[in-house]
Amino acid sequence: MFILENKAMIEKKEFSHIDAGGNPGMVDISEKSATLRIATARGKVRLPAEVMQALQQQGFATKKGPVFQTAMIAGIMAAKKTGDLIPLCHPLGLDDVKIEIEIEGQEVVITATARINAKTGVEMEAMTAVSVAALTIYDMSKAMSQDVVIAEILLVEKKGGKHDYRRES
Amino acid sequence: MFILENKAMIEKKEFSHIDAGGNPGMVDISEKSATLRIATARGKVRLPAEVMQALQQQGFATKKGPVFQTAMIAGIMAAKKTGDLIPLCHPLGLDDVKIEIEIEGQEVVITATARINAKTGVEMEAMTAVSVAALTIYDMSKAMSQDVVIAEILLVEKKGGKHDYRRES
Amino acid sequence: MFILENKAMIEKKEFSHIDAGGNPGMVDISEKSATLRIATARGKVRLPAEVMQALQQQGFATKKGPVFQTAMIAGIMAAKKTGDLIPLCHPLGLDDVKIEIEIEGQEVVITATARINAKTGVEMEAMTAVSVAALTIYDMSKAMSQDVVIAEILLVEKKGGKHDYRRES
Amino acid sequence: MFILENKAMIEKKEFSHIDAGGNPGMVDISEKSATLRIATARGKVRLPAEVMQALQQQGFATKKGPVFQTAMIAGIMAAKKTGDLIPLCHPLGLDDVKIEIEIEGQEVVITATARINAKTGVEMEAMTAVSVAALTIYDMSKAMSQDVVIAEILLVEKKGGKHDYRRES
Amino acid sequence: MFILENKAMIEKKEFSHIDAGGNPGMVDISEKSATLRIATARGKVRLPAEVMQALQQQGFATKKGPVFQTAMIAGIMAAKKTGDLIPLCHPLGLDDVKIEIEIEGQEVVITATARINAKTGVEMEAMTAVSVAALTIYDMSKAMSQDVVIAEILLVEKKGGKHDYRRES
Amino acid sequence: MFILENKAMIEKKEFSHIDAGGNPGMVDISEKSATLRIATARGKVRLPAEVMQALQQQGFATKKGPVFQTAMIAGIMAAKKTGDLIPLCHPLGLDDVKIEIEIEGQEVVITATARINAKTGVEMEAMTAVSVAALTIYDMSKAMSQDVVIAEILLVEKKGGKHDYRRES
Repeated sequence: MFILENKAMIEKKEFSHIDAGGNPGMVDISEKSATLRIATARGKVRLPAEVMQALQQQGFATKKGPVFQTAMIAGIMAAKKTGDLIPLCHPLGLDDVKIEIEIEGQEVVITATARINAKTGVEMEAMTAVSVAALTIYDMSKAMSQDVVIAEILLVEKKGGKHDYRRES
Repeated sequence: MFILENKAMIEKKEFSHIDAGGNPGMVDISEKSATLRIATARGKVRLPAEVMQALQQQGFATKKGPVFQTAMIAGIMAAKKTGDLIPLCHPLGLDDVKIEIEIEGQEVVITATARINAKTGVEMEAMTAVSVAALTIYDMSKAMSQDVVIAEILLVEKKGGKHDYRRES
Repeated sequence: MFILENKAMIEKKEFSHIDAGGNPGMVDISEKSATLRIATARGKVRLPAEVMQALQQQGFATKKGPVFQTAMIAGIMAAKKTGDLIPLCHPLGLDDVKIEIEIEGQEVVITATARINAKTGVEMEAMTAVSVAALTIYDMSKAMSQDVVIAEILLVEKKGGKHDYRRES
Repeated sequence: MFILENKAMIEKKEFSHIDAGGNPGMVDISEKSATLRIATARGKVRLPAEVMQALQQQGFATKKGPVFQTAMIAGIMAAKKTGDLIPLCHPLGLDDVKIEIEIEGQEVVITATARINAKTGVEMEAMTAVSVAALTIYDMSKAMSQDVVIAEILLVEKKGGKHDYRRES
Repeated sequence: MFILENKAMIEKKEFSHIDAGGNPGMVDISEKSATLRIATARGKVRLPAEVMQALQQQGFATKKGPVFQTAMIAGIMAAKKTGDLIPLCHPLGLDDVKIEIEIEGQEVVITATARINAKTGVEMEAMTAVSVAALTIYDMSKAMSQDVVIAEILLVEKKGGKHDYRRES
Repeated sequence: MFILENKAMIEKKEFSHIDAGGNPGMVDISEKSATLRIATARGKVRLPAEVMQALQQQGFATKKGPVFQTAMIAGIMAAKKTGDLIPLCHPLGLDDVKIEIEIEGQEVVITATARINAKTGVEMEAMTAVSVAALTIYDMSKAMSQDVVIAEILLVEKKGGKHDYRRES
């Protein structure tokens, strides 16, 4: 391993929002070109058995809808507020946000995909959509149990920037 | 197990934000009295080894500050927006929000405590503060690695409402 | 009709948000006491026959839900933003907002009730909830027809301030 | 009328924000091109005689200004928040919003025109501007009478998308 | 001067939003009692001669109104967003905000007074109202001259907390 | 000086946000082309000696960071809200905002630079960033002294619109 490689690695391993003086700042994207950016994030909310049972029983009737649909709308609306929530995020429009919510075993799995034609990506928009959809499910089931847990929020895939990314497994 | 008990259990196991017609709605708190409410939530952000190393090296110098401090401020500001993010949450003031961020092994551990003297609790405010602080850490380290994962967000403790709660372990 | 009566009438017939110099301003409520305030507003969205038919057909299947539920959530969230939208409104919390949406003939009828224990009423919160729920129904049906019309938004009832009010008929 | 035509008509008669599974979602505009979009909406606020009289008397003096100007500013600011209020609206910038307010008989007539060069139109921005201007007039005159009614909010014209539209009469 | 006095002085000379570990945080007001708080702030916008002349000439006609009234409304609306703008401010309601704008020589003088019955004061609300009113005047006159300067923003008086304050002169 | 010149001068000396009827409105930019716009604003916060001393002493230790960094983050986040705060400002994205804070004698000097490729400039974004960063410094030091004064906020330079501007001195 040589000095130049080391230097390259170190350059890549810096926090992009921190300048040379150690102060937080935005990343300047004024010289970049707009391309189509797509990002997909996923989150899991783990429900205790009695909450999952209530969700499913009521869902087979008429109440499944409102819990998941409220969470979807909350997630979509939150994606639009990403630049307002995350201090150093660029304020962006959005060409699309889609949220899917499914039950897998004891978990509610939330998947959000954001799209835009812009100079920077929508990774944070997808992550924020999932986070707020998860918080909304927590909010709507917390009267039954505080043991509801947001078990995971992560990026699944992104395309269209300097490097594409796809999580393995 | 008898019918009446069953009925009681079912009543307790309903989603409080869904009315009899299956529609989403707020919970009416107009008849409740204000008491001191405290809620503590915790979240974990798992960093790949190279990101943790960069964080610690730069933190021993001057750069640890800006990552964690930006996350703290983001979390505090998000707590104040909880009612704007979570559809059926009551809009509340806040008497205090405190966020602590520590490193434990490969994880950054975020703890948020919210306080208010109000008719309803600040569980969602603490959960939201942790979520947005976690998203901010993700945002600031994502240039280094997309393998950063928000590993867990949960309620640790709440006091002052109908039932106190304290998570075991 | 006498001078004193005239004077009284004129005093009552002034715009409360305009001061003696003709400038817009908030109404000072610092000397008022908090009481329970309830306000109900109603709005109507008139749908062309083909839109109403689509709504009902799809509603008998699974799609009625998302249009009305999205409108309900939009209305509830907008009620919480009333002070941010209406320049001279006091910023208030809310103890409850409920929205009901029904079909009557060619019209969708939206009813919103807001509640708070505060120094001023929630008339604008109920009116704003109805307005934004109506705009959301317009938004979701506008791809079918621009002839959708928000036909009416008005106050039905308010209680708890200086004067109670109940619209006749 | 043939099957294919029927099918086309049915396709056009779906709620664009509802996906095949009956869930609410945004419309993906990532493949569309930006064109100049213009939309004009109109609303009417019906004032009881004594409120209209107060408005006109005070307006001929110096107070007409603040009521209408506050409503204009409220409408312009609300147009900028459309994406924040209407759940499935795209977040957009705006190249222009103009609001005119005139008295016609017992009604205050509000007309808002929004303009943008974008992939989607500003119909909702114009409708939202009118709605919030109307709510502001209601707010400023409600101390005189609760019989003020928002009598109508509708689209007058839009240009620049797939289909232009102009309301007859 | 003795050690204990010194210590007291040092304790008073700490930044209240910074905790012992050097991290930013809110001040806990959960143990405080609500009292009537009033704060008045003042700002000055210095206009080049040609802008002041345009303002006054047009003001003697019909255009004075819209510049100052737009600034007043902007200031009032900003006061309501103080907790959203200033990271460690408590989110508060407001019982009243009044803004006055006058011309003194080459300067536009903005005075804002905020009132609330709460556990903490509205000093920042008054300061924010003045700042955003001043920015609005700058915005509306910047097409004529960039030499418009916000010359001063300061607290004039506050009452109702631990210590009252009144600026001399 | 001739009539035509006079007329030109008068045309340039009108408030661009006020229309012929004396009503406030946005400036229509739909016909303009996007170019790179850069604006730099500067503000000064004058600290009493004891506050400056506390800031510097604690800054040499570990506490300098949080005051200035909180102000930087507040300023960056406020720049993103400019269109929400200033009534007639266009809502814009931002390609970059950078804030620098330095001590010069008894003053804290805040400099903000905003960048965007757009049809209109980011002068107000830079001015707003400085204003809110200054308010945040005021907020964090007000427990020590109310004599902290925001002494000046002005535009230093702008490039990329019809006329470039650079303040002398």
